[in-house]
Amino acid sequence: MKTLTEKYIETRQRTEMICKHLQVEDYTPQSAVFASPPKWHIAHITWFFEEMILKKYVPKYKVFDTNFGFLFNSYYNSIGERIERHNRGLLTRPTVERVYQYRAYVDDAMIKLLGSVSDKEMTTLTILGINHEQQHQELLITDIKHTLALNPLYPQLYKNNLINRYNKNANGWTEIPEGTYQIGHQSDDFCFDNELGVHRVFLETFEISNNLVTYGEFIAFINDDGYKNPEYWLSEGWSWINDNHISNPLYWKNVNDTWHHYTFSGLESIDENAMLTHISFYEAAAYAQWKGLRLPTEFEWEAASSKLHWGTHWEWTNSAYLPYPKFKTAQGAVGEYNGKFMINQMVLRGASIATALGHSRPTYRNFFHPESQWQFSGIRLAK
Amino acid sequence: MKTLTEKYIETRQRTEMICKHLQVEDYTPQSAVFASPPKWHIAHITWFFEEMILKKYVPKYKVFDTNFGFLFNSYYNSIGERIERHNRGLLTRPTVERVYQYRAYVDDAMIKLLGSVSDKEMTTLTILGINHEQQHQELLITDIKHTLALNPLYPQLYKNNLINRYNKNANGWTEIPEGTYQIGHQSDDFCFDNELGVHRVFLETFEISNNLVTYGEFIAFINDDGYKNPEYWLSEGWSWINDNHISNPLYWKNVNDTWHHYTFSGLESIDENAMLTHISFYEAAAYAQWKGLRLPTEFEWEAASSKLHWGTHWEWTNSAYLPYPKFKTAQGAVGEYNGKFMINQMVLRGASIATALGHSRPTYRNFFHPESQWQFSGIRLAK
Amino acid sequence: MKTLTEKYIETRQRTEMICKHLQVEDYTPQSAVFASPPKWHIAHITWFFEEMILKKYVPKYKVFDTNFGFLFNSYYNSIGERIERHNRGLLTRPTVERVYQYRAYVDDAMIKLLGSVSDKEMTTLTILGINHEQQHQELLITDIKHTLALNPLYPQLYKNNLINRYNKNANGWTEIPEGTYQIGHQSDDFCFDNELGVHRVFLETFEISNNLVTYGEFIAFINDDGYKNPEYWLSEGWSWINDNHISNPLYWKNVNDTWHHYTFSGLESIDENAMLTHISFYEAAAYAQWKGLRLPTEFEWEAASSKLHWGTHWEWTNSAYLPYPKFKTAQGAVGEYNGKFMINQMVLRGASIATALGHSRPTYRNFFHPESQWQFSGIRLAK
Amino acid sequence: MKTLTEKYIETRQRTEMICKHLQVEDYTPQSAVFASPPKWHIAHITWFFEEMILKKYVPKYKVFDTNFGFLFNSYYNSIGERIERHNRGLLTRPTVERVYQYRAYVDDAMIKLLGSVSDKEMTTLTILGINHEQQHQELLITDIKHTLALNPLYPQLYKNNLINRYNKNANGWTEIPEGTYQIGHQSDDFCFDNELGVHRVFLETFEISNNLVTYGEFIAFINDDGYKNPEYWLSEGWSWINDNHISNPLYWKNVNDTWHHYTFSGLESIDENAMLTHISFYEAAAYAQWKGLRLPTEFEWEAASSKLHWGTHWEWTNSAYLPYPKFKTAQGAVGEYNGKFMINQMVLRGASIATALGHSRPTYRNFFHPESQWQFSGIRLAK
Repeated sequence: MKTLTEKYIETRQRTEMICKHLQVEDYTPQSAVFASPPKWHIAHITWFFEEMILKKYVPKYKVFDTNFGFLFNSYYNSIGERIERHNRGLLTRPTVERVYQYRAYVDDAMIKLLGSVSDKEMTTLTILGINHEQQHQELLITDIKHTLALNPLYPQLYKNNLINRYNKNANGWTEIPEGTYQIGHQSDDFCFDNELGVHRVFLETFEISNNLVTYGEFIAFINDDGYKNPEYWLSEGWSWINDNHISNPLYWKNVNDTWHHYTFSGLESIDENAMLTHISFYEAAAYAQWKGLRLPTEFEWEAASSKLHWGTHWEWTNSAYLPYPKFKTAQGAVGEYNGKFMINQMVLRGASIATALGHSRPTYRNFFHPESQWQFSGIRLAK
Repeated sequence: MKTLTEKYIETRQRTEMICKHLQVEDYTPQSAVFASPPKWHIAHITWFFEEMILKKYVPKYKVFDTNFGFLFNSYYNSIGERIERHNRGLLTRPTVERVYQYRAYVDDAMIKLLGSVSDKEMTTLTILGINHEQQHQELLITDIKHTLALNPLYPQLYKNNLINRYNKNANGWTEIPEGTYQIGHQSDDFCFDNELGVHRVFLETFEISNNLVTYGEFIAFINDDGYKNPEYWLSEGWSWINDNHISNPLYWKNVNDTWHHYTFSGLESIDENAMLTHISFYEAAAYAQWKGLRLPTEFEWEAASSKLHWGTHWEWTNSAYLPYPKFKTAQGAVGEYNGKFMINQMVLRGASIATALGHSRPTYRNFFHPESQWQFSGIRLAK
Repeated sequence: MKTLTEKYIETRQRTEMICKHLQVEDYTPQSAVFASPPKWHIAHITWFFEEMILKKYVPKYKVFDTNFGFLFNSYYNSIGERIERHNRGLLTRPTVERVYQYRAYVDDAMIKLLGSVSDKEMTTLTILGINHEQQHQELLITDIKHTLALNPLYPQLYKNNLINRYNKNANGWTEIPEGTYQIGHQSDDFCFDNELGVHRVFLETFEISNNLVTYGEFIAFINDDGYKNPEYWLSEGWSWINDNHISNPLYWKNVNDTWHHYTFSGLESIDENAMLTHISFYEAAAYAQWKGLRLPTEFEWEAASSKLHWGTHWEWTNSAYLPYPKFKTAQGAVGEYNGKFMINQMVLRGASIATALGHSRPTYRNFFHPESQWQFSGIRLAK
Repeated sequence: MKTLTEKYIETRQRTEMICKHLQVEDYTPQSAVFASPPKWHIAHITWFFEEMILKKYVPKYKVFDTNFGFLFNSYYNSIGERIERHNRGLLTRPTVERVYQYRAYVDDAMIKLLGSVSDKEMTTLTILGINHEQQHQELLITDIKHTLALNPLYPQLYKNNLINRYNKNANGWTEIPEGTYQIGHQSDDFCFDNELGVHRVFLETFEISNNLVTYGEFIAFINDDGYKNPEYWLSEGWSWINDNHISNPLYWKNVNDTWHHYTFSGLESIDENAMLTHISFYEAAAYAQWKGLRLPTEFEWEAASSKLHWGTHWEWTNSAYLPYPKFKTAQGAVGEYNGKFMINQMVLRGASIATALGHSRPTYRNFFHPESQWQFSGIRLAK
């Protein structure tokens, strides 16, 4: 089994692998309010270790740069002033090079600390920091893709287009019988606070699809005027597609009557057998309505998860992101982690091709606003 | 027991009672996108009977005015073009007088029809129309209040300020034991589609407060800098109060260091013993967080309802408005009723002083966006 | 010659004539930020007499209602708090009836005052008040039209559609020789402060059209893709038509391939020989560019005015609204009259069918933003 | 006298000098809609030479990259699709390195062309291209400053803070007698189309200040509640400062009760004797009103220019940017140059420390919206 130091190093290296093909220019822009610049991500996840661990456990620790707290803090209102979120993309300084120096400086201190001190709370915080970095790795990937996709040159970042590789891999339905199910994280392994509080949920009998919806199936929805018929849409979903002139999923482009989409390999024609991704909850719900079916709840999903193939696409559920019974917000800055986002967001379960190995489990609760499209999200149906 | 005709007449008369003290000028404006002009309400609920019933069941029925379908349709996308929602307040014509003529015309036809024809579907639609009108009665009251409250003259509409009368009427907590509870409407009486599909929900043991939060208790939250401390607020609630410069509940005004609020009797000093109303979900959730408590779920509320005093204030729950298992959208325009709003809204349970008699039941699911303040909403805590 | 009292009465009566066919409902709404409710207009012009004259010249004058200063003040920042401009349409109280009582009350006091006191400054202020009311009469007409035009019923207010009556009444061009011209108001008659400061302007030789552009001529511009070709448009005009999806003048509607427009007589087919109105500066400038011609400056217009037929349509000039040399802002509230608007607006010269008799003169400077369409504005070309 | 090739090379080199201290990261962001990324500027001014000259005059010219036309076109609607203006800051590719390769490629071709071909129109276009690049040099400087100023680190770009060096250098007033003055460009040297059409303007006698307003003088305005008193402000200026919470000039920051401002040398305390810059027209007009004085017109400025020290600060005039008599828009893309911006902008005369040598003359008409602050603009008064 890996030591904590090994896990720390592995996580830090994966972040740098993700950025390997970036140009210096790619690190700065913020393509949307919901996204952050790559430079911000890599500095912020480093700042977390410095702020939460090094400042506390390293005697006389010298902060790398006193400005960085202000620049790379995120939502931690308890820790003081932050740069306005929508201005993150204008921070040309510090340079990328200096942010990597910051990473190296913090890595040196962390590795030295982890090798010399053993403290339960410090271990807990380090594991939280590793999981925090893994979360940002996924956002890093999806945020980079969002910026590059806006570029009319459709730049290629990786040679392999991962997404089109994942073809439909199952058929039919799985029936789950009615009964009381245990929901929530049960082992001693790491989990986020929102998974805690094991509790019982009664489920009526339901069936859940063994496969995710494919591009071809979704094209049938489009061809049947799916984006033009209000009957299929939630009222706010209908406003969303009309206000934003949306008539196909994110990153799609019709070239000579053939659907293409932007991938990390550039603009590619769509493989109809592959499993659809970059879909919003609104689109997922409309598709389900058109099919005369529905999305599963997060409890149904968790109850059925051991019988499903999952892990390449986040799967929208029809559950709003809300606290489990007995959910308690932790004290202080760490407590700002999850609870404050429990409104107006929908739960996704599973994991995606962008998720770090070891960062997924059946109780994991991911969550985004219903209009979010830029994650590797797909559709699984229930009835 | 009342006949359907009696119920119809009673409902129609209550609408006119509500409007009794309005001036002609009060009927036109729309004070916010979420509100509608009184004239629009009273025409729209009339249009419902004409469109859904009279056109179908009265042979050779002559529509009162062919333009009214366009003017007074609401969200029924299936029935064709509508006037843009935010322009409803600019419709000076038809006049109020003509809209009352429309009401009388439809009432004549409806009463004649109800007295002569007996048809199961027609009865069902009439009962739906009555309940629809009762829903709009409550909106009529809250929308009128919202317009008058913006008027610097603080006009008096009724002599009695109903709200300040409802003092705290209970103390302590009720404990509900863990177990599987039946949720949803079970009798043959009318209910909305969103209450249907009786199903089982497992609840862990919980306690629910016997009383609603009072004005005095909420003032303590304000005095403890409740509106200034992000720790108490959901992240989007914190943005909401800051973007809108909110530092007290809707309709409140501090006059010489004493809290007043606008009521239908004009601007009045607040009675600290009365039960708080016009509170948003964001404010309710922040208050609960400050108290170290929480809001009940809608399932907890329903399970405990027989042991609670309720009916003067809608009570925010911590449940998002989502379909029950097996929820099915009805076909056609009637099917647009509820399902399409099942996103980004929170459930309120109970009823309020503005709710029509006979329009409340323990399974009733009301729902509004978390920032909505203009309903007669209050706070009940759980733990 | 009319006495001041006669002029006062005549002006006050004309306002009431304009409102004669209004329903009570028509008095309340505000159809756009640039418009005001009729009730506001008729109260505001009354308030001017009360605030500027009666409070000063009538000993122990008793204000009709102390709230009215707050409600019906306009841009007079010196006189204190005002209701927010965009909320004017929500003021259902005071009622229309009470505002007419206010008018009667002020009229009584004014007539008594004018009959008993003779004071130079008071006379000056009364004449200013009369001219102020005449200005609001024109806005009253155009604001009423703007509200009614948004109504899908296209209500008829007057039987005669005044606009379609004004056919092209001249042909050819008038040449004005180069030279130094006197610009500005010269007699002792009333004028606004922005006309004062007679000064010399040198004009190069130019020609000005004897006629205004007709509907038929403008339809030719539309048919030649005038609204689709950026070459004809000022850059901000091009953004304006695209952001607002504008492809024809205000109030136009294409019914079965025939252009109609809303008039006070309802929706009518357009008479191609009539002179075009309700045109923005952007549209006027684009039309001139398409013709290879230009709009006159306000100085050219004034120099040529004695040789032109004018008075039915305000005529856009290519002059920005700026102070004349030696322009001085008057002291106090009256000084807020004109100077503070001298930015981002273009001058119109002439008068329109909605202008009060006696309120027009060749030196009059009207001004609106370049996107304004709702005035009775037309196009005269120069070269 | 310099050859055209020498002038071309000198201009191109100055652009690179301006960028000498930029980091790669600084080239990408767009800090506001009115600004452009440095990379865009340096590519766009290169594209101008390729599009307007090389494609026409070099036989079989091979475009460097066919995508660049789309990416680096600006307002030239005639030349086809462009990237949306507000997305310019998201273009991470092409890289800065590749854009410099583009410059080198175009420079090679231009130098070869200028050395071998002599053609009148080509010469004219080259001179236009040089002047176009000089204009963008000034925007490059002001746009870089705008981005860096938003950075909480206040990065230093140059060691010398040029602005604080320019102390008040004159006193008193110059009187210019009434009379007819020639306005507009008269020699055969290059000028922009908006300066053409020499014409006569009659000016009344006026006095113009020999000096620009200093920081110290403007601080007196602030200290006298200049930003809090609506009497000094144009109505839209008053809205602008209130909507944007403006209470001091751009880049100012009060540190321990001392006014500082961001300069290219970082955050520095303000030298009260230096001449004020980065002032909007609204602020300039309010200052003049507070002083009981006014801004000169552009005609007054031009008539007085030979008697004034000017060249370090652009000087706001009270003239709107409008065409001179006989102004003609050129045909085609070059014709989009100036005429289409002749609305809602005010003229500035003179030049600034950021203006290229040889790019200034007394007839030069610069123009910006009245709220623009980010240019090196100052205040000269008249009476």
